[in-house]
Amino acid sequence: MLQLKKINSHLVFGACRIGRDPFGDQTRPEISALDCIKGLADRNCYGFEFHDNDIIPFGASAAQSDAIVSGIKKCMSDNNIKATMATTNNFYHPIFKDGAFTSTDPAVRLFATQKVMRCIDIANELGSEIFVFWGGREGVEVDASKDPIEAFKWFRESLNFLCNYVRSQGYKIKFSLEPKPNEPRGDLYLPTVGSVLAFINTLDHPDMCGINPETAHIKMAGLNPYHEFAQALDAGKLLDVHLNGQKPLRFDQDLTFGSDDLKEAFFTTKLLIDHKYAGTIGFDCHPYRTESNPWDFVDRNLRTYKIMQEKVKQFNENKEIQSILKEVHGASKNLQGSLSKFTPEAATKLKEMTFDPTALASRKLPYEKLDQLLTELILGVL
Amino acid sequence: MLQLKKINSHLVFGACRIGRDPFGDQTRPEISALDCIKGLADRNCYGFEFHDNDIIPFGASAAQSDAIVSGIKKCMSDNNIKATMATTNNFYHPIFKDGAFTSTDPAVRLFATQKVMRCIDIANELGSEIFVFWGGREGVEVDASKDPIEAFKWFRESLNFLCNYVRSQGYKIKFSLEPKPNEPRGDLYLPTVGSVLAFINTLDHPDMCGINPETAHIKMAGLNPYHEFAQALDAGKLLDVHLNGQKPLRFDQDLTFGSDDLKEAFFTTKLLIDHKYAGTIGFDCHPYRTESNPWDFVDRNLRTYKIMQEKVKQFNENKEIQSILKEVHGASKNLQGSLSKFTPEAATKLKEMTFDPTALASRKLPYEKLDQLLTELILGVL
Amino acid sequence: MLQLKKINSHLVFGACRIGRDPFGDQTRPEISALDCIKGLADRNCYGFEFHDNDIIPFGASAAQSDAIVSGIKKCMSDNNIKATMATTNNFYHPIFKDGAFTSTDPAVRLFATQKVMRCIDIANELGSEIFVFWGGREGVEVDASKDPIEAFKWFRESLNFLCNYVRSQGYKIKFSLEPKPNEPRGDLYLPTVGSVLAFINTLDHPDMCGINPETAHIKMAGLNPYHEFAQALDAGKLLDVHLNGQKPLRFDQDLTFGSDDLKEAFFTTKLLIDHKYAGTIGFDCHPYRTESNPWDFVDRNLRTYKIMQEKVKQFNENKEIQSILKEVHGASKNLQGSLSKFTPEAATKLKEMTFDPTALASRKLPYEKLDQLLTELILGVL
Amino acid sequence: MLQLKKINSHLVFGACRIGRDPFGDQTRPEISALDCIKGLADRNCYGFEFHDNDIIPFGASAAQSDAIVSGIKKCMSDNNIKATMATTNNFYHPIFKDGAFTSTDPAVRLFATQKVMRCIDIANELGSEIFVFWGGREGVEVDASKDPIEAFKWFRESLNFLCNYVRSQGYKIKFSLEPKPNEPRGDLYLPTVGSVLAFINTLDHPDMCGINPETAHIKMAGLNPYHEFAQALDAGKLLDVHLNGQKPLRFDQDLTFGSDDLKEAFFTTKLLIDHKYAGTIGFDCHPYRTESNPWDFVDRNLRTYKIMQEKVKQFNENKEIQSILKEVHGASKNLQGSLSKFTPEAATKLKEMTFDPTALASRKLPYEKLDQLLTELILGVL
Repeated sequence: MLQLKKINSHLVFGACRIGRDPFGDQTRPEISALDCIKGLADRNCYGFEFHDNDIIPFGASAAQSDAIVSGIKKCMSDNNIKATMATTNNFYHPIFKDGAFTSTDPAVRLFATQKVMRCIDIANELGSEIFVFWGGREGVEVDASKDPIEAFKWFRESLNFLCNYVRSQGYKIKFSLEPKPNEPRGDLYLPTVGSVLAFINTLDHPDMCGINPETAHIKMAGLNPYHEFAQALDAGKLLDVHLNGQKPLRFDQDLTFGSDDLKEAFFTTKLLIDHKYAGTIGFDCHPYRTESNPWDFVDRNLRTYKIMQEKVKQFNENKEIQSILKEVHGASKNLQGSLSKFTPEAATKLKEMTFDPTALASRKLPYEKLDQLLTELILGVL
Repeated sequence: MLQLKKINSHLVFGACRIGRDPFGDQTRPEISALDCIKGLADRNCYGFEFHDNDIIPFGASAAQSDAIVSGIKKCMSDNNIKATMATTNNFYHPIFKDGAFTSTDPAVRLFATQKVMRCIDIANELGSEIFVFWGGREGVEVDASKDPIEAFKWFRESLNFLCNYVRSQGYKIKFSLEPKPNEPRGDLYLPTVGSVLAFINTLDHPDMCGINPETAHIKMAGLNPYHEFAQALDAGKLLDVHLNGQKPLRFDQDLTFGSDDLKEAFFTTKLLIDHKYAGTIGFDCHPYRTESNPWDFVDRNLRTYKIMQEKVKQFNENKEIQSILKEVHGASKNLQGSLSKFTPEAATKLKEMTFDPTALASRKLPYEKLDQLLTELILGVL
Repeated sequence: MLQLKKINSHLVFGACRIGRDPFGDQTRPEISALDCIKGLADRNCYGFEFHDNDIIPFGASAAQSDAIVSGIKKCMSDNNIKATMATTNNFYHPIFKDGAFTSTDPAVRLFATQKVMRCIDIANELGSEIFVFWGGREGVEVDASKDPIEAFKWFRESLNFLCNYVRSQGYKIKFSLEPKPNEPRGDLYLPTVGSVLAFINTLDHPDMCGINPETAHIKMAGLNPYHEFAQALDAGKLLDVHLNGQKPLRFDQDLTFGSDDLKEAFFTTKLLIDHKYAGTIGFDCHPYRTESNPWDFVDRNLRTYKIMQEKVKQFNENKEIQSILKEVHGASKNLQGSLSKFTPEAATKLKEMTFDPTALASRKLPYEKLDQLLTELILGVL
Repeated sequence: MLQLKKINSHLVFGACRIGRDPFGDQTRPEISALDCIKGLADRNCYGFEFHDNDIIPFGASAAQSDAIVSGIKKCMSDNNIKATMATTNNFYHPIFKDGAFTSTDPAVRLFATQKVMRCIDIANELGSEIFVFWGGREGVEVDASKDPIEAFKWFRESLNFLCNYVRSQGYKIKFSLEPKPNEPRGDLYLPTVGSVLAFINTLDHPDMCGINPETAHIKMAGLNPYHEFAQALDAGKLLDVHLNGQKPLRFDQDLTFGSDDLKEAFFTTKLLIDHKYAGTIGFDCHPYRTESNPWDFVDRNLRTYKIMQEKVKQFNENKEIQSILKEVHGASKNLQGSLSKFTPEAATKLKEMTFDPTALASRKLPYEKLDQLLTELILGVL
């Protein structure tokens, strides 16, 4: 029986989940955190995700915070659901209007870092082992205001400080950065999967850092989610995923997984299965503003993902498809592996090798047929 | 006196430089390699760049190749111009129709690698110290045909082999990868600056590899060239640059530097100046297909870059601009540097710090004024 | 039994159909016009489409042209296939480098118009009743060169002249304009379905002019093909269609219909069926450059379209879907039609009507469920 | 002396003008309507624009509304400022969550129409002669929910009813439709200038309807504002303009005019000057969320527009530029006008004309030089 590891609480929490958008007022009542968690558990979700301010109001006292966390813990235990991921809302309050970790004001950078430390403590308390950073305000509209290299330095300082904090506390927590190209800022720093992966390599403790890519954010730069998720996986950095949907190159839509692009949904699922991805599967999207309650929406994300799991199984077992793939990948067998190890002799040998470019160029690659087989498999008519 | 380090020969060489496009035939005669080099030297260019097949026909014998290279060397010496960068054309011939380093056929991967080795020898002969890889065919239209993680593995194998080849030969050459999101393939692997930087970290010899970002390729993903170039610089990997112009999110236009977006041209120039970038400045663009000769076009790239150098100087010296920047960057001075070094004590101290979020949120950030001052500086009316 | 009206010859004719792209050489042999037509007929296509230079070389004499046309006619008759649509290639030859109808040179405008007249004669001879205009060179890179309002005037002059020519000859031919936003020119005039529809209203004989929208061209502006085709249909101007596929906001890909976006393919098909579109169905796309022959590609366009026809039937017959739609469209039945006719009394009555905005705002619109039902219908699991 | 006709109040009114965005809370206090109007007058603006709910709260009684309108009239008279344009906010309240004129609920369509009628009365009272329709909720996320052709019918019904209302009241008011491709809805109906122009032709009273194009909305579809504004002008339908700035193909940014794309700002200004556009110049944008007050922002829109007016004058007077243009537009003078009037004789004559395509193809078109002259003119260094 197919089973989802996790569905995240972004589905139902938060300001934009009440149906408000930049041009329109709230269309449905907010659901309390406890009702959200219970609702997800009722739908057999393995876990939920949260921003600090999804459960604890901005500015709450330590005592208030403790009381709320206790309530959440009880609810989790009663409903057998995990808090798989935690993150800090360092974007909503006006204090972050020009950045949190990359604000020009050191006081704002310190405040943001402190807010994360407190949220890390809560994450540890609730057993979340993945701690996400989405730099929603880390960017600019006015490039004249800030040197990006200075902004990277500040970003790095906060992350290094926080990595050290986790280590000094002995918490079992990894950091996961979530890239996005723009919105709400004109341009956001670290806009892509690649830029996050590269940035991690400049940190003091790259081993405890990874990435949390989101389908919609990838498509906002017109990139291919299959390839982007793959690079994160290839680098050993795919700590968790945010699946959803998005029409490319427009405002952040956070649509249901698969609702806009079934082929992309198929390949994302295929990648996670083929490479035995062991992290949680999170759906970070929100219901249409026209919707009066979010639960149909939760169900459909789960359903589509499970259907795609079946389609991937069919693809991997389909004889015609596999036979084409075998042929495509079976060329020049005797030459396989020739580049895997360099020696001066291998170099000399390669330099003297002769090839028949015309013959090699004329190889049949029946990709129209292969892609049509996949299309019909997705359409359920194969 | 302002002076350009280099203008690259992409300006005038190559198949698309004869005014052919996907929907139209050649509109102007091809210029021979020697005339190109001479023409660039006549315009006081420091150097030129070349693909192997810009100077040596595909399939030429070793003897033919040697003769041509001798001719080029003489021309360089006669005209006092350098070959600053070399690269391999592993995209034009049909043998590369489904990839060069990422072809499913090991014979094609070997052929492509051999072609690079030969081009590296020529680069060394001509004194080029930067060797570029643009993976024009490293991508797919049909994701069903190839696992991207396998493609990354093949890509890495060829690059590792070639790094070792350079080292074994004792050549003074660094590799520079040039990302592009799509075109000619539906999606190209390693589409962004970030993805290249991250990929380099997975190679055997990352120290000899860097990046060659191109403005147009960055804008084809709707990203901000200032930020992307900056991340490369921040990582110590900006080996060379390809400046040009592009309307975002459409076919590869390779317009003149600054012709489409003056503000972006300003910030790219500013970055290179402010951070004392020491590499060459290459313009990788081509004249309009309507143009009957390319030399007006070469001149204007140089002119615009020089004008931008002046504008950057004005910006850095303008009192009103610098006074706003000083104010913006001067907040909470006593707190600067507090995050630069982690200690358990610093963590405890930060955790107990108190802030006034309302006061911090209300900080005046006169960015409309700052951006307008820059706008008027660019317009020459400040 | 489902049946296609037509598949167009753009599939197999033309320069880009030989697998050449801006960065790569020809990968497969060109197929002769007669073999194309026969090949399409063999696959039970109703008809084919052609550019003048697909069948007659540029610059052929009248006698050569006549001989070729005779050969085509015999082939059509032998193979029972129609030439459903004709068009002029006014973009490939360098004479059109800065426009055909919108060239600044009146001689070029006259030459282009003459070329169309000759092609119209051939279209009439071959029985094509739809004559298409794709203004592949009608645009600019340098807006300083040409006032768009002057360009519109020239465009209009040629079209008016040609409309009058058709009328004066008594040909049974309608004109159909095909919009595209950019490529090969930096920006093309009349970039969208709307701009063409609006432009037609400024012609002398709007009744004989309509539109030929193409899926890929619509998606190159990030627009919704379902909506764009619908506006053409609503205006009574949808003379023919070019279906294909395209990843939004990038170079012109001309992918197989449905290969990239199954939901869009579904809705385009649904529109044509629901509104009893009676024109031909043309597929204007080309095989992947990796493909060694185009015929798999022809087959898959036909297959996907037929599958979509079945899916539309299922949608229109599905009880759960139709029940949701009935509920959504059944609100406030007593008020339907109140705006269909204006009278001063109706205005007074409306002005005094009272509404309960809160009640109206709270209407349940189960669109997540509806969209999921459609998703599962497309996936073949409903 | 250069003078602006009008600056619109969109600058300072409205919900997003308080610095709230989808991910962040309000950053600055709202300014009252009267203070906005006074503030604009103080900056020598000719007029202001308003949504009904910018001045009158949703659900206000007739008496409240009358009192407010009286106050506005007095303020206008005291400050010598006009209300150049009025429009209805049919997007913010949840009642419009699935459309106003295109809601599936006739009660919502009637409510929306009634709301417009009341706003038209106020517009008439305040002397506004342009009445704008921006269909912010006229669109869908779920295409399964609504046939676009039915939506067009409903849209048309309301507009026709309202046109007749204006006529029956004898008001001196014209309607102006404002297109936008997406956001807040997934896709908006009538997304482009062209689609609005075409739609107007299907209304009962096209003569009293025109268009209000906005730079940012045009760039959200990646189109060229110069060309789009031009088509509206060419069709005699450019009733008013909303100038601003926008990075192409992303969320609606409403940046300051010229802040992102100086060349586009130049050409838009040039078009309005060259074709003696007589309507008002409105700037529909909003200050950065980081900004603490909006007035710097108002000033800079005015300044940039005036600078561009000067640049256009320089362009039209520059001898080198004009000499290139004269040459480009002076080809084949003897053939000018040959297509302006059709006669059978003209057709016969044209059909027999001979041309030299090679000669015509080789025409020199020094567009690199022309574009560089413009670039340097914009940069203020010519």
